[in-house]
Amino acid sequence: MARDPFVVVGGDAAGLSAASKFRRETDREVVVFEQGRWVSYAHCGEPYFVKGSVERLTDLLSLSPSEIADRGIDLRREHEVVSVTPEDRTVTVRGPGERFEQPYGELLVATGASASTGPFDTSLDGVFTIHGLDSAAALDAYLTPPAAYDRERLGDGPVDEARVERNAALDPPERAGIVGGGYVGVEMAEALTARGLDVHLFQRSDRLLGPFGTAVGDRVAAHLEEQGVTVHTGRPVEGLRGDGRVEAVEHDGDRLPVDAAVVGIGVEPNTGLLDGTGVDCGPSGAVRTDAYGRTTLPAVYAAGDVATARHAVTGEETWVPLGLTANRAGRAVGATVAGDPTPVGDVAGTAVVKAFELECGRVGLTDESAAEAAGFDPASETITAGSRSGYYPGGDETTVTLVADRTTGRVLGGAIAGRDRAAIRIDTLATAIESDLTVGELERLDLAYAPPFSPVWDPVLVAAKVLHGRLDG
Amino acid sequence: MARDPFVVVGGDAAGLSAASKFRRETDREVVVFEQGRWVSYAHCGEPYFVKGSVERLTDLLSLSPSEIADRGIDLRREHEVVSVTPEDRTVTVRGPGERFEQPYGELLVATGASASTGPFDTSLDGVFTIHGLDSAAALDAYLTPPAAYDRERLGDGPVDEARVERNAALDPPERAGIVGGGYVGVEMAEALTARGLDVHLFQRSDRLLGPFGTAVGDRVAAHLEEQGVTVHTGRPVEGLRGDGRVEAVEHDGDRLPVDAAVVGIGVEPNTGLLDGTGVDCGPSGAVRTDAYGRTTLPAVYAAGDVATARHAVTGEETWVPLGLTANRAGRAVGATVAGDPTPVGDVAGTAVVKAFELECGRVGLTDESAAEAAGFDPASETITAGSRSGYYPGGDETTVTLVADRTTGRVLGGAIAGRDRAAIRIDTLATAIESDLTVGELERLDLAYAPPFSPVWDPVLVAAKVLHGRLDG
Repeated sequence: MARDPFVVVGGDAAGLSAASKFRRETDREVVVFEQGRWVSYAHCGEPYFVKGSVERLTDLLSLSPSEIADRGIDLRREHEVVSVTPEDRTVTVRGPGERFEQPYGELLVATGASASTGPFDTSLDGVFTIHGLDSAAALDAYLTPPAAYDRERLGDGPVDEARVERNAALDPPERAGIVGGGYVGVEMAEALTARGLDVHLFQRSDRLLGPFGTAVGDRVAAHLEEQGVTVHTGRPVEGLRGDGRVEAVEHDGDRLPVDAAVVGIGVEPNTGLLDGTGVDCGPSGAVRTDAYGRTTLPAVYAAGDVATARHAVTGEETWVPLGLTANRAGRAVGATVAGDPTPVGDVAGTAVVKAFELECGRVGLTDESAAEAAGFDPASETITAGSRSGYYPGGDETTVTLVADRTTGRVLGGAIAGRDRAAIRIDTLATAIESDLTVGELERLDLAYAPPFSPVWDPVLVAAKVLHGRLDG
Repeated sequence: MARDPFVVVGGDAAGLSAASKFRRETDREVVVFEQGRWVSYAHCGEPYFVKGSVERLTDLLSLSPSEIADRGIDLRREHEVVSVTPEDRTVTVRGPGERFEQPYGELLVATGASASTGPFDTSLDGVFTIHGLDSAAALDAYLTPPAAYDRERLGDGPVDEARVERNAALDPPERAGIVGGGYVGVEMAEALTARGLDVHLFQRSDRLLGPFGTAVGDRVAAHLEEQGVTVHTGRPVEGLRGDGRVEAVEHDGDRLPVDAAVVGIGVEPNTGLLDGTGVDCGPSGAVRTDAYGRTTLPAVYAAGDVATARHAVTGEETWVPLGLTANRAGRAVGATVAGDPTPVGDVAGTAVVKAFELECGRVGLTDESAAEAAGFDPASETITAGSRSGYYPGGDETTVTLVADRTTGRVLGGAIAGRDRAAIRIDTLATAIESDLTVGELERLDLAYAPPFSPVWDPVLVAAKVLHGRLDG
């Protein structure tokens, strides 16, 4: 008798990476249940669709359902897995007009995360989270004057037509309030400014992009202001008010009239499916996984935004819901289930974001108190240095924050901002950190130098030199 | 009695880095002898001055003589050190109208390298090497119509006025032959094309930029052709012919009429000063140095383009005359002589070059036969992958060659080419290589992903994935 199939819940990055890798390695059956209509889409591209840099919504799709079928994957869209019974190795599935039990040999939970909405009324017209192609399509329609709306923007995909039509029919907004100064908030500030709106960005804490540290956060705030965005830091938003359609952002007792709002205050792992199974969860409620993506339930794996991972610096369990992690962990689980045990890899917390012309990156532990909490004795330096030789046109001052442990000299984290090739330079630090380099070793790396690309001492090396000098002194 | 001073021969990258660091660490005297009039200039910027991207010749200077004096350095320009007597710890110096013995406590030989001229007649008008500000100024003057030449281009520096005037008076050329397809050849092809010349590039071997490997070399050649350069590979040049002024490039029995030529066939270490001292030399005749820049002569150090270094991959002695190496080794020797022993650091052979719009990088061992000679069992893969998410505008196909050892999986070298942030990505590989990562570890690095900067799998990760798959399979 054939083994029961490998069942995957979720048809995006982690789930389809797992199913694809699995099918390349084995002839066994794999079934992917996706509760929605969209599969294999680039969540991170949504702000750029709204901005108008991406021509069609469907350009954000990586694989079509038929390409997925061609890989030998049994994909069932609009099939929600509502519960798991680990002792029987079955899941209960609700599809259009049916409900059934599906046995599995192994199960991968790749249900992702959803945008948090906090106390905000996202049922008002004009209020959006940026999480999923339907919300991106609806916001794009909302931003466009009814007479100018072009159905071609959607391409040929299973979009929520009714939602798009309702939004396309509304008068376009003139001023937007963005709640939250993280990735989504910063990217949407750029997108909405490009669409001609007067944009106000509200951030509860004193700086934008918290995980990037003070120097980068401050520089991003200044750059956003230069680009016409009004940045309100240290301003918790109490609510979004309106009657049917959003009319105001209420903050600190003030009311800012707006006719559009984006809520970007974080995401939450979609673990509901495992409620009642007794599965262990870790930080932020994500499903606890080991080095191979195994949960604490037998034959049940989790990968992607729903799962924890091991941090490359602390060695501790962490939760960093980002795209590469999801793809990589999914692929590793696919290989493991197919019989080739493959670690999912650590996460270093590497992240990059574009804020208008400013490129930002971060990795590892950038916050001294987080580093202390992990048992380190951190020291930190922030420098600015040119991105190219001073005489070569087109360079920009590059801000680098570097954190290292005083006792061992080990590089713990870093952040970077600048307009000229700054973001991709974070990969140098990510590689150094995952290789356990000390700041002295980092300082002595033989990095690239040519006037169009870098000064003799790359900004990363300058930061290492300064911090190393302080640790040595 | 005070100790004899620290004497430095050569007033550019290595020499002035050493003197500056030394003076920051100690009150002892340091004397820098420079045989020419220029000090502290950016050799690597010369092609961009010729191209016209750099406004004034003096923009290429980092430090002026007075800034150097302000650092407490006793700089003597137009002072040539003609010999060393290690047993007496003295050098013989020839200055304007004088010749004297200078005792030293420690000596640093930082005499750099000179452009090789091979069999080519560089005394002809219109024939240039690109090595030093005087040759860059002369070529710029030669390229400019006499009526249009603007003395302001020179800024306020000790330029060879007579040479500039002679070249400025000549009719500007229309067609240039470049001999050599390395860094200088490729950069000058871009510069001379920008100045409106019909450019022919001759390369003895079958590909350009040999140390970058076949895939990158071929892509550079194709890109140069797209940009209007005629690339002649596999075409050894026999000579540059002319009567007073260059008239033709003779190659393979053919004659190409030209009225300008650039010879860029490599550089040679300037070791003449040490002739007869019995100092050990290493590959290519450079002065052999240890991990602290010490030569085999007592109290004599060497750093920069004149000295060998240790290769990060092979652990063997090598000679890689590049800017960062020179600055870093000089700085380390300055610290060591001041009493804080500081290793000069290994070299990984990291190099980047811009060829018109194409950015290229290389590091480590990219050539399989070089890797075999060093005792490895190399495997190599070349991939192309997008530099950004496919839907995000402005990306480019990025070519990555990766070399690893079959036995250990260790990453040995790599090369990269592409138009979008390709060059700086070599730093990721440089860091991985200097950290002794395996290709499997490289594949699992948590590198940056955001649509404007990288696809989910960065081209470097794609290369690692493919090569790792092959090594595992």
